[in-house]
Order: sequence, then C-alpha cells, then structure tokens
Amino acid sequence: MPSISTKGINMPESPIRKLVPYAENAKKKGIEVFHLNIGQPDIKTPDVALEAIKNNTIEVLAYGRSEGSEKYRQKLANYYVQHKINITANEIVVTTGGSEALLFAMGSICDPGDEIIIPEPFYANYNGFSTASGVQIVPVISKIEDNFALPSISDFEKLITSKTKAILICNPGNPTGYLYSKEEIEKLAEIVKKHDLFLIADEVYREFIYDDDAKHQSVLHNFGLEENAIIIDSVSKRYSMCGARIGCLISKNKEVLNTALKFAQARLCPPTLALIASEAALETPQSYFDEVTVEYKSRRDVLISELSSIEGVKVASPKGAFYCVVELPVDNADKFAQWLLEDFNLNSQTVMVAPAAGFYSSKGFGTKQIRIAYVLKKEDLISSVKILKSAISEYNKI
Amino acid sequence: MPSISTKGINMPESPIRKLVPYAENAKKKGIEVFHLNIGQPDIKTPDVALEAIKNNTIEVLAYGRSEGSEKYRQKLANYYVQHKINITANEIVVTTGGSEALLFAMGSICDPGDEIIIPEPFYANYNGFSTASGVQIVPVISKIEDNFALPSISDFEKLITSKTKAILICNPGNPTGYLYSKEEIEKLAEIVKKHDLFLIADEVYREFIYDDDAKHQSVLHNFGLEENAIIIDSVSKRYSMCGARIGCLISKNKEVLNTALKFAQARLCPPTLALIASEAALETPQSYFDEVTVEYKSRRDVLISELSSIEGVKVASPKGAFYCVVELPVDNADKFAQWLLEDFNLNSQTVMVAPAAGFYSSKGFGTKQIRIAYVLKKEDLISSVKILKSAISEYNKI
Repeated sequence: MPSISTKGINMPESPIRKLVPYAENAKKKGIEVFHLNIGQPDIKTPDVALEAIKNNTIEVLAYGRSEGSEKYRQKLANYYVQHKINITANEIVVTTGGSEALLFAMGSICDPGDEIIIPEPFYANYNGFSTASGVQIVPVISKIEDNFALPSISDFEKLITSKTKAILICNPGNPTGYLYSKEEIEKLAEIVKKHDLFLIADEVYREFIYDDDAKHQSVLHNFGLEENAIIIDSVSKRYSMCGARIGCLISKNKEVLNTALKFAQARLCPPTLALIASEAALETPQSYFDEVTVEYKSRRDVLISELSSIEGVKVASPKGAFYCVVELPVDNADKFAQWLLEDFNLNSQTVMVAPAAGFYSSKGFGTKQIRIAYVLKKEDLISSVKILKSAISEYNKI
Repeated sequence: MPSISTKGINMPESPIRKLVPYAENAKKKGIEVFHLNIGQPDIKTPDVALEAIKNNTIEVLAYGRSEGSEKYRQKLANYYVQHKINITANEIVVTTGGSEALLFAMGSICDPGDEIIIPEPFYANYNGFSTASGVQIVPVISKIEDNFALPSISDFEKLITSKTKAILICNPGNPTGYLYSKEEIEKLAEIVKKHDLFLIADEVYREFIYDDDAKHQSVLHNFGLEENAIIIDSVSKRYSMCGARIGCLISKNKEVLNTALKFAQARLCPPTLALIASEAALETPQSYFDEVTVEYKSRRDVLISELSSIEGVKVASPKGAFYCVVELPVDNADKFAQWLLEDFNLNSQTVMVAPAAGFYSSKGFGTKQIRIAYVLKKEDLISSVKILKSAISEYNKI
C-alpha cells in the first residue's frame, strides 16, 4: 500500500474533534449541550449581504479575478482608510477566508524549515497552516497571570535565529482576547525592523473591542512597517459570515504582494457568490456594529463576573474578540472536557469547551486551561457557568 | 527589507497573465478579442442551481463541516454510483474547487522533494500546486503526433525513483483533450501497483466526451486501485459553475482520506453558499447535459475541421474536455500570441490564445504550440480560425 507523507502524519487534528462524538452521544441521551467551544457567532448576518445574494442576476457563475474584483478591492480599501489603514486596492489580494491568506503569507516568505515566532497560546489552526507549509512555529510564552500581554523584547530576541522569517500576532487575540497596546506594537516594530523580519498580523477581530479606553492598533498604522507588515483579514467575524470564506492579505511590500498573487493565480479565484455578499456587506450600517458590540460587551462582562465567582478559577480579562482563556482547578482540562460530555449533566444540560492545550505548541502548557467562546446569549452563558461550577466541584470529588 | 522565499520566487506566473495587458490595449483600440485562451465556458449555469441560491433562507452564514455537509456528500456519492464509481459519502472530502483537492492530495502523500510523474503537456496550475507543496514534477512526454496518448510503460518506469510518490493524469485532458482508454488505465494500474504509487486522476471533464464509441474510464472503476487511486473532481465545468469553487477529493484509502481531512479542518470549511448551489446542481436534468454535449461536439468538429484547413498546422484530435493543442507554422507561439494582440487585426478583430509552453515543465517543449479552448459559439470559432489563418500568413511575411 502506498504510504502518506510525514507532513500528512504531522498535520494536527482539530483540538476539539475528538470531543465531537462525546457531544453527539450526550445529545442522543437527551442532554442539552451549550457550545462554548467554537467561534461561530449566533449574530445574524447583515440583511444587506443576504439580500445581495438573493437578488443576484448571475447567469454564468464564472471565474472572477484571482486577486478579487477591482470593484470589491476598491471598496475594501475605502473601509481600511476609514480605519486609518492607508492602503489602495492594489495592495490587497482577496483570499478564500483568512485561512488562505495565512497560507499565502507563509508560502510567500518561508521555505521549509524557516521559523515564525508566535506568542502562545495562539489560534490552533496556525499549527495546521505551518505544517502544511513546512514552517516551524517557535512559540514565545505569554502568561494568564499577565493577562497574556506581549512577552518582553528579550524573550523574542532569545528565539531569533537565521531561520526566523516573521513574528505572527493575532490582535485582538484568539484565544486570549488580549488587545495589544500602541507601546506593544511599537516594541514589535522595533524587533522586526532590527532583525529584518516580517510582522504578520491577524486582525480579523479588529471591530470586536469592548472598552471605551481601548483602541485597535493595526500594524499598518503609523509604525513605519510598510516593508515588514502583512495583514490577514476576513469577513467571517465582522459580518457573522464565517461560511462565506472571503478574506484578504494586505501588504505594502510589492514583492510580498506579487508573490501572494502567484499563489492566488494557481487556485484561480475566490468564491464568486461569497464575494457578492462581501461587497454588499461593506454597506452594513454602523448601527449593526454598535448593537453587536453592546451585545458582546455585556456577554463578556457577565461571563467574566460569573467565572470569577468560582473558587480556584483563574480568568484572563479579555479586551477584544469573543474568547477567553480560563484556568480551572482540575487535574487535566482535556479529561475534564470529555467527562463533562460523557458523565455529567446538571438538570439535563452540560457544556462543551475547547481544552486549551491545542492552542499551545509547547508540550505540557495550558493543560488546566480551556478556551470559552462567548458566542451565546447571556442567559445561556449564565447557565453554562453554573454547570461548569457544579461540574468542577463534582469532578474533584471523584 | 525582509526577503520573500525561494518557494515564492519559484511560484510560476499564470502563463497567459503577461498577455493580459496586450489584450486590454487591443480592446482600448476598439479591436474585438476572441478569447480562446481560457476554459471559462459561455454555457449557462443550470437554473436549479441559480434558483437555490436566490431562494436560500440563511440568516447566519455559518461555518459548515470541514469535509462538506453529510447531505451533500450523500447525494454526491449517488452521482458517482450512477457513473459506476462505487463510493460512499465517507470517502469524499469536499474542497474549495478542484484546486484545493490537488493541494490536499499533494500534501497528504508528498514531503518536500518527493516526485510526481505527469504526462506532459499538463494543466499549467499543476506547476503552481507542486511548487507550493514542495513537490517535484517529473514530466513524461506525450506527443501531438500520437494525439497525446499515454506514453509507454517503459517511459514511465525509466523515471520512477525512490522519491516517486504518484502518477497524476487529467482525463479527459486539459490541455490535450485526450481520453485515456481502458487499456491505458490498465497500464497505469499495473505500474502504480507494481511500484506502490498513488494514481491521482483529475476527472473534472468526465462528462465532456463527444464520440459515441468513447467512454470515460475512472480510476475507481474496476481496476483494483482501491488503495492507490485519488480522484480530483469539481463542479466548475460540469455545471458551468467555475466561480462556485466547489470540488472534492475522493479516495477509498482511509489513511489518505483521514489525512486530507486534517488539511480540510485547518481551513475550516468549503464556501457555504456555493455548496447550496452545488447540492442543487445535482438535480440538473439530463437534457441540460445532452444539449451541452451536442453543442461542444459541434464546436469541436467545426474547430478541428477549420484548423486542419490551414497549411502547416498540426492539430491533435480531442475526444473530450473542451481544449485542443495546435502546433502552428510560426517560429515561437509566445511571440506570435503577443503579436496577435499587439500588431494584428482582421477587420478589427483578433484572437487571444494560450501559448502551450506553459503546459510543459520541460524547457523548450511546446514552443510552437498553443492551447485553444472551444468555449465560444460556432460562428465565433469560425471567425477565430479565419483570423488565425490570416495572421499566420501575415506573421510569416515579417
């Protein structure tokens, strides 16, 4: 029998996949499962996007341009300019989700064995994209005690080798909810310019910021990173259009952009129907975002306050995105997450959480932590934390 | 300035991209350009697919399953069973176009430096996917004089090394239009089983076959290739839905399928709206395909007969897909293609063709050849060949 590749063997499984059968079994037994494990918002997609799809007049669903239509990129550039990110349509390559933008970025700047430094914990799929691209992730630990703030410059510099090609951040962070300050981005700018590295910033949660004094700092604001910065973006969270699969890669570095474009040409074009929805979504009224922000802020506040009331629970205070990392007083979060689905219920309800070990690439880290996505309505979040509280107490009696 | 990767430098440009500005200039001068250069059919997408999009009732455009919805894979499996390809829903991973299926296949079976043997000329983007995956393409020459039939077993065996992981065919072929016979697939089956290789078959043109005595041979028909075969498929051509970006990878080899699934999980899911269209497209009435086949057959017949009437032109006789490779009596097809757009017109009309060198990976091959896609209506094809004829004569006088 012909054999699969080492790369294929090394591709990580989704960190929650092994829990899915347990969740299905629980449901079969009549238990209601609150899904705190995935970043799929329950927020309605803007009408303007849904209507554009219904009203499309396509007769031949044809290939579009590899880099995305000029019209869409033009409108998209306007959106960025409104966010003080001064780019033009020609500095954007439209991709099939932020996922593909990350693959194009890694492929454009890294050869097999090259290294990218990423503050840990990080979005689990970075492991998959780096394995697929033959890139080595070098984690730099950020700590729950520091609220997952940026590690020190010296922590980064200790890890930089001749193989290092980039630092990758997610801002605001999945899974941490951490929002980097201006000073922190300045620190990163200093490091990447000094060592001639790229700074890849996954900014898909740009709008999801909940405190009045907090402001998103894009790597293409005034940090002098024109040659170094690569922004990864996506419509998935902004417009609750995760299934559209439209994102983009942005760079003012022409070599990077032209290289990413060659990757884009090989796969022909991003999905045409989703592009129609994404273009229309740019007309979403501000009131939509205002409502969404108020909703997530109140979800965050109630979640953090409820979690903090459980003895022995350590919780970071997220400033953005819609995740938080929680350290539980249990021996092993993986085992606990499975037990929640397999052996526990409170009045026929239980919760599914994402064990945080999958968000670390260092072995043995995050084993007592979970990631909670606050994508459910407040009542359900309150019920979920009640279940967690009761479960922890019960679990520790076993 | 940080530098891009060697991989990025090696990524091929689209073979027609450099011609695009010349085509745009010609149009600006008021010249009508017949596009024989791309495989974008003018055929209408089936109503049933377009209507499903218009009638969708989605409120949250959410992530779907990484492998595609169970419902779609179930219906898709039925389609294959009707084509005597006996697979189940669980042997399919739905992908973002055939493009992504090729990337997943290469990633699942090849490590950097591994080799895949491909009969040449081949679909130009195989170069891009292999570069992106770090895979080495080893071409085996098929000849226009033989109508691009399968090279001999010994031609293949000469190229097999310890690095060889697969043979990749496109059947019917882009750009050749060649349709492999049962005996040829049997030959391939013998080679891959003897040398423990995978046989990847890009079968996206399965339905596009024009002769009564011709029949498509899938690698998952009765060739005993359950462990070796990987099928790449797509809705793009079948339903004239190139912009949907829905394809799939099929394998009865569980290791391959589970590995491909891990690549699929990293990028979350295929585009949800396009999946709705693709599922509905499976209900397309047979009359649609009958009409399409009649149309393409008559286009092919008129094109080949007109081309054959030009002195010095060698044309392979395509049995399927909607391309043919034509050898022209010119010094260099690349130069000629540019000249057609830049310096020539016949009554304010000209043609854009794809120079065939981009479909070879061996240097210096196909330099006098072009690929013609017969995706235009008959009158336009007749006009196009008239223009070509006149242009060749004019060009050779310079």
